[in-house]
Amino acid sequence: MNVKLCEQYLAPFFGEEELAPYLARAAEARRQLAEGDCPGREFLGWQHLPETIDPAEVERILAAAEQIRRESDVLIVVGIGGSYLGAHAAIEFLQGPLHRLEPGAFQVFFAGCDLCGGQLEELIRLCETKRVSLNVISKSGTTTEPAMAFRVLRQWMEKRYGAEETARRIWCTTDREKGVLRQMARREGYGSFVVPGDIGGRYSVLSAVGLLPMAAAGIDIRRVLAGAAAACRELEDAGPHNPACRYAAIRNLLYGRGRKVELFASYEPRFAVMGEWLKQLFGESEGKEGRGIFPASATFSTDLHSLGQYLQEGTRQVFETVFWFERGAGEWTVPRDEEDLDGLGFLAGRTFRQVAWQALQGTMLSHTEGGTPNLLFTLPDMGEESLGSLIYFLELACAVSGLVLGVNPFDQPGVEGYKANMFALLGRPGYEERRAQLLKRL
Amino acid sequence: MNVKLCEQYLAPFFGEEELAPYLARAAEARRQLAEGDCPGREFLGWQHLPETIDPAEVERILAAAEQIRRESDVLIVVGIGGSYLGAHAAIEFLQGPLHRLEPGAFQVFFAGCDLCGGQLEELIRLCETKRVSLNVISKSGTTTEPAMAFRVLRQWMEKRYGAEETARRIWCTTDREKGVLRQMARREGYGSFVVPGDIGGRYSVLSAVGLLPMAAAGIDIRRVLAGAAAACRELEDAGPHNPACRYAAIRNLLYGRGRKVELFASYEPRFAVMGEWLKQLFGESEGKEGRGIFPASATFSTDLHSLGQYLQEGTRQVFETVFWFERGAGEWTVPRDEEDLDGLGFLAGRTFRQVAWQALQGTMLSHTEGGTPNLLFTLPDMGEESLGSLIYFLELACAVSGLVLGVNPFDQPGVEGYKANMFALLGRPGYEERRAQLLKRL
Repeated sequence: MNVKLCEQYLAPFFGEEELAPYLARAAEARRQLAEGDCPGREFLGWQHLPETIDPAEVERILAAAEQIRRESDVLIVVGIGGSYLGAHAAIEFLQGPLHRLEPGAFQVFFAGCDLCGGQLEELIRLCETKRVSLNVISKSGTTTEPAMAFRVLRQWMEKRYGAEETARRIWCTTDREKGVLRQMARREGYGSFVVPGDIGGRYSVLSAVGLLPMAAAGIDIRRVLAGAAAACRELEDAGPHNPACRYAAIRNLLYGRGRKVELFASYEPRFAVMGEWLKQLFGESEGKEGRGIFPASATFSTDLHSLGQYLQEGTRQVFETVFWFERGAGEWTVPRDEEDLDGLGFLAGRTFRQVAWQALQGTMLSHTEGGTPNLLFTLPDMGEESLGSLIYFLELACAVSGLVLGVNPFDQPGVEGYKANMFALLGRPGYEERRAQLLKRL
Repeated sequence: MNVKLCEQYLAPFFGEEELAPYLARAAEARRQLAEGDCPGREFLGWQHLPETIDPAEVERILAAAEQIRRESDVLIVVGIGGSYLGAHAAIEFLQGPLHRLEPGAFQVFFAGCDLCGGQLEELIRLCETKRVSLNVISKSGTTTEPAMAFRVLRQWMEKRYGAEETARRIWCTTDREKGVLRQMARREGYGSFVVPGDIGGRYSVLSAVGLLPMAAAGIDIRRVLAGAAAACRELEDAGPHNPACRYAAIRNLLYGRGRKVELFASYEPRFAVMGEWLKQLFGESEGKEGRGIFPASATFSTDLHSLGQYLQEGTRQVFETVFWFERGAGEWTVPRDEEDLDGLGFLAGRTFRQVAWQALQGTMLSHTEGGTPNLLFTLPDMGEESLGSLIYFLELACAVSGLVLGVNPFDQPGVEGYKANMFALLGRPGYEERRAQLLKRL
């Protein structure tokens, strides 16, 4: 198993007998998922996706990615929430935040994930001199943010390339049959991929939703899928006491003890966007019916100099879930310096990673002593297989955890509220009544 | 006053009479700060810094920045925590995350704020072909992360430029008299600036700590200081019932009602790093003695598609503090489209900002209805003066809030724990005893 759960820092907080009832509920949740016998059962397609994804679909994704890289310098991915977070997280995890600055690097940008015109304007300015392809990702095609950005970018590309070439440069990932974006794809002749109907946005990164941007970025998606498939198999073989179920049980035990904030942390700047992906995965799956752990994220040791004080001595409501990678990009050592003015001589010859590992251990001991529980996940490296395994592991752990909590981990009824109010205030046809009510309240 | 506090969305949660006792404590805290009669009184230098900063010091900063921009394409800022967050936040707020990708843009990079060798290696690779200056910021010079990065970068520059030119390209910001970095500056002849002795790291952004990187980035620091000075004056004239005190009182009231997580949010991707700065400012100031609000941050509407579900329906432990800017970079409008396949016709001709404002109102109404209190700060624009005003406003609000909470807002005893453990585990001379204890626990 690529993903190992280390519980040694939890010892002061609870014993195995206290965990047992939560483990039993996690095992039951696991059974429900396996048998499709749970709330949200219509959205369980992610469970076997890594093993069942159609090889022909993967071939089509790779062919599209190859064409995109051949004909373009930049891919603009238009999507919001689950339609962009997974790909963004995976690309940054594997290539790092500085990659797109490298001369000649193929660049992937994300648009339509906010309502900032200035950001879009700057992106277009940056791309004026580059060859551009676009991947618009939206199940319905009517989500406001990506639809606005797509309208702007489509018209910009049509001016630049003409209708025909634009059509060849635009790729849609949307519902198989229904929706505006599917209609547009048919009519304009855009290349298109499918958002599986039985997979919700936040569980969709291993479908075409995440795989096309990843492949276009130059990532070996076959290795990502292989890592996910391996985790899927191993977690099944491990039975009910697999580490994903243990993690789900531990989270719920801590939650029951008043630990209502979980801080996802790693010592890798490359993991930062994975933290954002985790916030959506867990926050949107569990935050309902007045329940759920608030998901936060941090990059250590950076944020030990911002949140560290709070974690050590603040309100005892947080637990930390830390991800460690035994190998990573670059293994620099601290150089020798005869004069040793800075007093770092005792570190000379050590790799940065060795220092970071001691920082991790020192921090866990210190925060544990301060009363903040720490979980530790370790992975062998920061490669494609490890990423695939980690993604699948976390998806399963999240689904199990939500069921243990007693909610439907696959819906998000609360996201509609702001949209409906926004449409009403913007005067969208059909929202007149709500508009009248809201204006009274303003 | 550039910073306006809008309380209309708080009405369902408490009345003025319930706020009154907190306001009284905030007024008392304000008096304590003004008279230097509070815990941490030795760190109140930030209070009048915008008005009292030595014009000659500002001149020296501007001259250094001009030399850096003339002789370099890149400035690498080496620092961690308060030694880099403020400058990073200010530069991203004013120039945006895509700025450094623009052809010919002067680039500012941050190093020594983590323990990632791969990141440092990639930064060096990116800079091999560019002219580089370096600003190392550390009060003592012995903080591990920046000291490690500085040792690597110094040797890399000396190989590249030779000792003499390297000395002209390195700028230290450190203690006036004491410490390793001051010694090195004297001995190597580095240009140097002072970290004021009476200002803690997280309150230091308007000193040379933040001003030199900002100026090197091309920011008009005089306008930033002018905005801060204006806020300083106006908050004094406003007396005890100024909006900073009201904000401090409201936060503490909500905290007392079990709202122990504050989400700082804006609709501007450019504000994201300001969110990181806010986490340090408030988290490190208040997270002690088992108390304090956990600080989190988000960018809307992006994160309405990740945290939105939780904010609408999750555990009722969060309140939102939202920052809105009436004008910003770029005012794009949604273009017309005869066919209107995407159904966005009702938005055609509106600016993105107008849509975002309706999203903000719709979200606040929806989250408020869901039981999540929302505070709203509005600023006229995203310019230098507004930024300066906002920084000063938030520093004062944080100091007042910490005193209302009953803690010392100017110390961070809990940050030492992980450092001492790390040193012990790394075998630093002088930590033998702790090392032995820790090894037993591992």
